[in-house]
Amino acid sequence: MSSASEGLFAAKPSPVVMADAIRVLSMEAVHRAKSGHQGMPMGMADVATVLFTKFLKYDPKAPDWADRDRFILSAGHGSMILYSLLHLTGYKSVSMEDIKNFRQWGSSTPGHPEYGHTAGVECTTGPLGQGLATSVGMAMAERHLNARFPELVDHRTWVIAGDGCLMEGVSHEAISLAGRLKLNKLIVLWDDNNVTIDGVATIAETGDQLARFKAAGWAVKAVDGHDHGKIAAAMRWATQQSKPVLIACKTLISKGAGPKEADPHSHGYTLFDSDIELARQAMGWTAESWTVPAPVKKAWEAAGRKAAKPRKAWEAKLKAHPNGADFTRAMKGELPADAFTALDAHIEKQLELKAGDATRSASGAALAQLVPSIDDMVGGSADLTGSNNTFVKGMTAFDTPNYDGRYVHYGVREFGMSAAMNGMALHGGVIPYSGTFFVFSDYSRPAIRLGALMNIRTINVLTHDSIGVGEDGPTHQPVEHLASFRAMPNLLTFRPADIVEAAESWKAALLSETTPSIMVLSRQKVPAVRTTGGNLTAKGAYEIRPASGEAKVSIFSSGTEVSVAVAAAEALEADGIPTRVVSTPCWALFDRQDAAYQASVIGTAPVRVAVEAAVQMGWEKFIGLDGIFVGMSSFGASAPQDVLYKQFGITKDAIVEKVKAKLA
Amino acid sequence: MSSASEGLFAAKPSPVVMADAIRVLSMEAVHRAKSGHQGMPMGMADVATVLFTKFLKYDPKAPDWADRDRFILSAGHGSMILYSLLHLTGYKSVSMEDIKNFRQWGSSTPGHPEYGHTAGVECTTGPLGQGLATSVGMAMAERHLNARFPELVDHRTWVIAGDGCLMEGVSHEAISLAGRLKLNKLIVLWDDNNVTIDGVATIAETGDQLARFKAAGWAVKAVDGHDHGKIAAAMRWATQQSKPVLIACKTLISKGAGPKEADPHSHGYTLFDSDIELARQAMGWTAESWTVPAPVKKAWEAAGRKAAKPRKAWEAKLKAHPNGADFTRAMKGELPADAFTALDAHIEKQLELKAGDATRSASGAALAQLVPSIDDMVGGSADLTGSNNTFVKGMTAFDTPNYDGRYVHYGVREFGMSAAMNGMALHGGVIPYSGTFFVFSDYSRPAIRLGALMNIRTINVLTHDSIGVGEDGPTHQPVEHLASFRAMPNLLTFRPADIVEAAESWKAALLSETTPSIMVLSRQKVPAVRTTGGNLTAKGAYEIRPASGEAKVSIFSSGTEVSVAVAAAEALEADGIPTRVVSTPCWALFDRQDAAYQASVIGTAPVRVAVEAAVQMGWEKFIGLDGIFVGMSSFGASAPQDVLYKQFGITKDAIVEKVKAKLA
Repeated sequence: MSSASEGLFAAKPSPVVMADAIRVLSMEAVHRAKSGHQGMPMGMADVATVLFTKFLKYDPKAPDWADRDRFILSAGHGSMILYSLLHLTGYKSVSMEDIKNFRQWGSSTPGHPEYGHTAGVECTTGPLGQGLATSVGMAMAERHLNARFPELVDHRTWVIAGDGCLMEGVSHEAISLAGRLKLNKLIVLWDDNNVTIDGVATIAETGDQLARFKAAGWAVKAVDGHDHGKIAAAMRWATQQSKPVLIACKTLISKGAGPKEADPHSHGYTLFDSDIELARQAMGWTAESWTVPAPVKKAWEAAGRKAAKPRKAWEAKLKAHPNGADFTRAMKGELPADAFTALDAHIEKQLELKAGDATRSASGAALAQLVPSIDDMVGGSADLTGSNNTFVKGMTAFDTPNYDGRYVHYGVREFGMSAAMNGMALHGGVIPYSGTFFVFSDYSRPAIRLGALMNIRTINVLTHDSIGVGEDGPTHQPVEHLASFRAMPNLLTFRPADIVEAAESWKAALLSETTPSIMVLSRQKVPAVRTTGGNLTAKGAYEIRPASGEAKVSIFSSGTEVSVAVAAAEALEADGIPTRVVSTPCWALFDRQDAAYQASVIGTAPVRVAVEAAVQMGWEKFIGLDGIFVGMSSFGASAPQDVLYKQFGITKDAIVEKVKAKLA
Repeated sequence: MSSASEGLFAAKPSPVVMADAIRVLSMEAVHRAKSGHQGMPMGMADVATVLFTKFLKYDPKAPDWADRDRFILSAGHGSMILYSLLHLTGYKSVSMEDIKNFRQWGSSTPGHPEYGHTAGVECTTGPLGQGLATSVGMAMAERHLNARFPELVDHRTWVIAGDGCLMEGVSHEAISLAGRLKLNKLIVLWDDNNVTIDGVATIAETGDQLARFKAAGWAVKAVDGHDHGKIAAAMRWATQQSKPVLIACKTLISKGAGPKEADPHSHGYTLFDSDIELARQAMGWTAESWTVPAPVKKAWEAAGRKAAKPRKAWEAKLKAHPNGADFTRAMKGELPADAFTALDAHIEKQLELKAGDATRSASGAALAQLVPSIDDMVGGSADLTGSNNTFVKGMTAFDTPNYDGRYVHYGVREFGMSAAMNGMALHGGVIPYSGTFFVFSDYSRPAIRLGALMNIRTINVLTHDSIGVGEDGPTHQPVEHLASFRAMPNLLTFRPADIVEAAESWKAALLSETTPSIMVLSRQKVPAVRTTGGNLTAKGAYEIRPASGEAKVSIFSSGTEVSVAVAAAEALEADGIPTRVVSTPCWALFDRQDAAYQASVIGTAPVRVAVEAAVQMGWEKFIGLDGIFVGMSSFGASAPQDVLYKQFGITKDAIVEKVKAKLA
């Protein structure tokens, strides 16, 4: 804390006074909002001050500068530390009015930092552990682009993480992946205050974090998180390592909060009026609320200007760079001009060939066209490369020291993989895709959600999408996953029916710059069902087989069951029952169509049937209250897939029988 | 490997020959099924042989013996090692016919081990990492029951885990929790073969696992996984530790598979006929396929008989034990006779009081009745005790050395917590419940799914269930989670509307012995809406407010929005529009009702409305294709909750307006 004698209004405020500015803004904003967390912001104010005044490369005037350091507040509940920093250093995005309106409707200062909502916020954080895991992807993207554009990309990724972040399982996936890849531009500042919500952290955690990170291949150091000189020395050391770095910053929670300093119960909003007053006295902070003494603000803004010159120099370098335009295009998230030339030709050819295939192979065939056409694509798999069909011939591994490789061996780390993909997409310049089994999307779901919330483009290839998995049995057979992802806002859930739909799905996913996609793909082979071009998957649902006359039956289906539906339609037609089939590869895209198109697709046939090797949830939107559903109502079983389809009654005959019973 | 001279048909077969029996059964069953994994079973056959012949306490004649050691195959894809062991040691559940029918419909030998399907399988495994995390819960239940019934419970939990298990994030949560709690009866045998599906494990993982486990508070040792003497010495040492134990068993994948031994590509089904032949030659295995030489079978069965005497002695102890009957009841999963006396009285009282409350508090009030009445209940929270209302006055912490405590500080480990709860439920004698925020159910979802698949009873308290979370913003506001869990088979998703429904939900959850439940509860206060008793929540959905005449409008709702629906109904009635309200606290229970009841609840009102502060997915089953939905279609936002309800249009007025527009 500053003593009064150090001078709050001195011309050159001390670093401690600068840190106190964070403390006061944080505690008073939380106090006013009557919710939020002052504990971490006050505890880590000194560390953040050293970082933002001496080490972090950033320019508040150019929040999108491609070569800025990335700063991720993994302990997102401490959002006021970030808002304070953005305000103090001169980001336009956070005014004092915003600080006053912390956690209120329409402010730029929501309860947890939100990417895209507030310039300077690099990542939406709050779900613990994920900021750390996302930062690994940012550091990967940085190394990759550094390998491709060494003159344009060379920066660090700094993370503040709390005890909670390090307890979450995803932290293990993140740190072991970062250690394996030797991501030495990644530096994690752990707020080592031994406090979590339920009390002292040791009630639930007694592990040795330094030893743990070291075991994962990190360089580690502990430091007094309130000693500015020692913090600076540790950060300097960190920038010289050949491995990712953990600095354990030993801090007191709510440092400076008078009687509440170091109180485990001061994690969240718990400071009374009197505590605020005593805290101000202890800090010698006499400035009015919602003001920052001019010299303090000036000192912070000076820190915020330090990288202005390098940034301008960098812009000149970019201008002169032979591939500068391509770099800028990639960083904007735009696709190269000829992105789909090969894919479109592939689709034309497949419409002629009418070949059957597993849709995972169909996805692999699409990737074989796209990966050579779009240099920005970086693929990978959570240890299921051969099964996910995510590898394209000619790709090399992304690895130390060959960071120019475009294929990541993520290991058995589904959640860490999806979080890393978010980080790559946030960093920009890279379009990440990767694979695992659909059933293990349960593991990566929190990261897929965060990507949807952040409006970023990642593509999750999820193969082995139903009981069609066969012998591996119910642990490996998704039945509820389609419904669970279709329910998620701002996510495109694709389940293509054949080679053509698979290729169209990839096109739609790549064109969705602000929406992540999942590609739900089969293990088993299916026949071709599409007969015409027209990029119909982009409409989400469409009539794939018209009825011979006025339809008595509409069958709605997706993926591998579309061919079953078509077979059933043919059988019904043979018996004189006009039947149409609608393929529904992407419900979210269908929802975006106009009402007239939607009504035409749903149609007016008196009998409506939905066929999907998954649970019914949601299909009522196509078949209504009195429709027929042919699908699953339980978990699956272990047996060859054709046996399972028969045993669970998802067959042409079952559809025909049920329709006839309904018509009778 | 045994040489021919060691004698496959010798009267007293060597331990290596016994291990070879596992190898041959495993490779031939996989070969016959043309799918599955022989790599791990062959690699770990020696370790398993030492464990099952010298250390594991089990009796094939009494698979449910309460004080048996638990053996969990976390690397579930290697199921043939377990089926081989069960067959060889004399479990009736796995015949040679079942081994031949590995992975076929109706056999007891599905692709991955399934709890409840095959006696001797303690846990369904396959999703990597979860077996390990579940075993932590088993070890916790053991210590807890040991504290309560020291004469009846004292056994170990043994786990085989692979590289993949240790890469998954949940392994971190599991081992740090086990280390914190000093669960010294837990012993993990790591199949340290440096192989995963994509190749050598080091392409994705170079961490030092021994150092990692040590940092988490484990005792660790490495051993040659093919040296029976050293394995035995390590296991003996393991049984003497005061901490959980990791033994790294250095093995060759597919040990004994002739030319495929140690081949990274021999993880799964890759052995040709010729490989099988060469493997048999290398092992000197001349016995016909699907037979085990009599002396070998006899030696294995002798091993399986070693605990028969102790088991019988234990049964005598149980019979003589003053609390033996209560112990047996608890192990069967039955509730005490007076389990609900206090709760029922509480419900009666609340029906009179008609008080409003947050439903999380209502849940806490129910727990305050139940926890003292049901000694088997063991609660906890993932570091959100105060917010989840899971703690009941008088509970003490489950901790070393006070394992009799009934409240677990799980730490910020949602997935590990839910997996541990599965382990407790599998162990038996304990009814686990615990809490986190609903939005973080995304983290624990894989364990909730596995619990549903295993037909076990766990109760997940999930508070802060909608935009009602308020200022914490969209990262903390579930919108798609209700739909995603309602889609999951064999799961009860409760979203009670008030104090009475919350209490009834707890009753229904506790009575559901073969189904896990989630309790979806509000942060914010709501008024009482229930006016009559009758345990109506058990029906899943019911008319909570009748219309004044023939209903023109049916409003369906759940949880905190039921009171909004009732207010809207009252406003519509005031305008002369007869309106009924249906509360839907548990869709899965409603699905179990007969068709007549379901039809009566859905009713025949021409206008159907659903109101829920969540996405629409699934509500069409109540409102059909032309119903009105009042709810969310996007992620939430950060602001006080009343502001959010207004901004997102989930209000009485919005409902009334939409209904009138429809009627106009």
